[in-house]
Amino acid sequence: MSDMNDLTLESVNARIEKAAAFFSNKDIVYQTEFFGADNLVKADYCSLYLKLENLLTTGSFKLRGAYYRMSLLTDDEKIRGVVACSAGNHAQGVALAAQKLGVKATIFLPTVAPLYKVEATKRIGGDNVEVKKHGTVYDDTYQAAWEYCQQIGATFIHPFNNIDVIAGQGTVGHDIIKQCKSRKLTLDAVIVPVGGGGLISGVAAAVKHANPDCKVYGVQASGASGMCRSFKSGKLQDSKYINTFADGIAVRSPGKLTYEMCKQYVDDIVTVQDDEIATAILKLLEHHKCVSEGAGAVAVAAAMHGKLPLHGKRVCAIVSGGNIDINILSRVINRGLLTTGRFTELLIEMLDKPGSLAEVSAIIANVGANVVKLSHDQGGKGTKITGCYLSISLETKDRKHLDEVINALKAKGYKVIYKESNYEKNHIY
Amino acid sequence: MSDMNDLTLESVNARIEKAAAFFSNKDIVYQTEFFGADNLVKADYCSLYLKLENLLTTGSFKLRGAYYRMSLLTDDEKIRGVVACSAGNHAQGVALAAQKLGVKATIFLPTVAPLYKVEATKRIGGDNVEVKKHGTVYDDTYQAAWEYCQQIGATFIHPFNNIDVIAGQGTVGHDIIKQCKSRKLTLDAVIVPVGGGGLISGVAAAVKHANPDCKVYGVQASGASGMCRSFKSGKLQDSKYINTFADGIAVRSPGKLTYEMCKQYVDDIVTVQDDEIATAILKLLEHHKCVSEGAGAVAVAAAMHGKLPLHGKRVCAIVSGGNIDINILSRVINRGLLTTGRFTELLIEMLDKPGSLAEVSAIIANVGANVVKLSHDQGGKGTKITGCYLSISLETKDRKHLDEVINALKAKGYKVIYKESNYEKNHIY
Repeated sequence: MSDMNDLTLESVNARIEKAAAFFSNKDIVYQTEFFGADNLVKADYCSLYLKLENLLTTGSFKLRGAYYRMSLLTDDEKIRGVVACSAGNHAQGVALAAQKLGVKATIFLPTVAPLYKVEATKRIGGDNVEVKKHGTVYDDTYQAAWEYCQQIGATFIHPFNNIDVIAGQGTVGHDIIKQCKSRKLTLDAVIVPVGGGGLISGVAAAVKHANPDCKVYGVQASGASGMCRSFKSGKLQDSKYINTFADGIAVRSPGKLTYEMCKQYVDDIVTVQDDEIATAILKLLEHHKCVSEGAGAVAVAAAMHGKLPLHGKRVCAIVSGGNIDINILSRVINRGLLTTGRFTELLIEMLDKPGSLAEVSAIIANVGANVVKLSHDQGGKGTKITGCYLSISLETKDRKHLDEVINALKAKGYKVIYKESNYEKNHIY
Repeated sequence: MSDMNDLTLESVNARIEKAAAFFSNKDIVYQTEFFGADNLVKADYCSLYLKLENLLTTGSFKLRGAYYRMSLLTDDEKIRGVVACSAGNHAQGVALAAQKLGVKATIFLPTVAPLYKVEATKRIGGDNVEVKKHGTVYDDTYQAAWEYCQQIGATFIHPFNNIDVIAGQGTVGHDIIKQCKSRKLTLDAVIVPVGGGGLISGVAAAVKHANPDCKVYGVQASGASGMCRSFKSGKLQDSKYINTFADGIAVRSPGKLTYEMCKQYVDDIVTVQDDEIATAILKLLEHHKCVSEGAGAVAVAAAMHGKLPLHGKRVCAIVSGGNIDINILSRVINRGLLTTGRFTELLIEMLDKPGSLAEVSAIIANVGANVVKLSHDQGGKGTKITGCYLSISLETKDRKHLDEVINALKAKGYKVIYKESNYEKNHIY
């Protein structure tokens, strides 16, 4: 199937309708949650709704495109199997589709792909899936996958640059429209994470077809902003270097087809910093009990940090996926605890008098803070060479509570040095 | 309203139906997700489904009971307001109901209640809610709330021991039945977290009314097992001491009414350990992108750890809430990373030769592990007084990968001492 397709809204939407009809009697692609989340944005900014694609089977919307595209294989193509290349979410989508459709899939992953993603792909696909690891850079892996695919005469399932993959992803937009209709809600804008551009191309087609006045905005990580720069410059551009922890949208080369569709249907594309993404992940976790990955949280991050003209608007942000490495999630949480003053490491200069340790312990206990770790320390830069220091890891309720601890220690004559904080590094009180 | 009620299935179910009808046109109590989660249990054990009440507004099912009970207030009672006592989830439910119904609520919380729960209660309730902090033990707080309620002539909204609160919670069961019907699924068992017993009383009534053959099992934390011991002994029992991180079900005194209903409708009540609850929280997080609190995860923990006779059965576990302190969640994750070999602190005895640090670094890098923290250390118990040690915090892919790191170091003559691991404390290789 060529990528030179009829890209009118009617034509693309007809494909999306077909994909939605295909999914409607399949258990594994269901209507994911849609609900209000005004508590994630500043009061008087916008009325925010979330569409939770992280709750879809395999943990991301990617299943939709892969499954629908593979459902269109002819009997002959099914026998010859498919090949795909992915660093994660697309691999799991292809694996599940292969298993459900009884198609043999060979999936190429970079050798540096996190073990848990490799394992998930194998577990989901079972006997129908063979995983091949090749290359440390995605482009090398892609090249190897493409060559292998030509060799064995299989069908290549592209992660985004294919009209039927896009139609599958577009069913997210179809869902949103249905869910708004049943709530008698008219959206003013939809915000969509962008990597290669498959999701936003499909969603924009569905949304604009149903309501041409609804804005469609894309969001990329600032460390991987190929589509954003292409969109703004009017010329398709690759990225030489990509650098973001949002691996699901860390795409070097946007698609030609998706770029064309973005130009036609999308109103604007903006970027967010990794730290802004991390805050969004933490807020989704705390306020909506919802695990999102970096790529999954960029649309929410854009709304949270006021990156778009949404004042007084009704807006839906798509949370596109939740496959975050638990090590990364742990770091995101710890970073959040530091920035909000709920976890801190203090270095305390002890006084030259007996019972100092007991006194410090008592002061901290009285203020209601919780000591997690404690050790004597010889200090570091900015400390006295003969000094005796106590290194304490503390849980506190918030920034104000932490200040209470520090002030109580100061009142008794102790000098307190921050060891870790996002606000002030090694600040001496 | 007296607690001496007609407890026949018909009568209780009529109330549940009324509550469900009341919610059906309210945005804030919606049908929460229900889906398959076989990957959480051993193969060939049971077919597991989850009902995600942690995704309900305010993060737990508690809103249902509080909101329905308060919707039944007479105009006169509404003017006089309500009083409630809670350590968390019930407080947020009452606060939102107060705000929606325009009723003044005074909510008593223990002085030790986590700040974030106090703040959430205030934020949700707005001007309609006054928060009073009293007592360090729930029973003292309860006593103060009850006395204050008598004084001002308000209505006391009990967290569980009231038939209309129970009817509200029973709508979770009503939901489950509807969701199974639309999937043409007949459940063999429903597993329900138990603290005071409000949720299980309502759910059991709804489920047994619809399908008398479906088993209803309760699960408590072993450190707060009042209802379990009461159920097994046939005599209502309080707990002298309670000790669990699942604060949402850390109830000292089960309700009289809920105890009666458990006796009539519930098939068995079992307990799970805190470590088993922690594993369930981590698995829900990783495999279902879903944040649960300790109380919310006990039913899943019971299924995961094979505590119930579920072989070959179709089972629904209720995830009742997700309001976990982010500090606690961080500890649960870190504990999980340790037990699965994905985060480890190693103490390495350095060799008495130049370039040891560079060599150790190279060995670790070659095996593909990630050093997070590194420091020289003078060792501790079991180390040589003249030795020089390197303390390293490592991210590894899994237990096997960690073993690779250790073996590579050993092969070069280094002695490796675990500093932190759930498996082996200070094990010397």
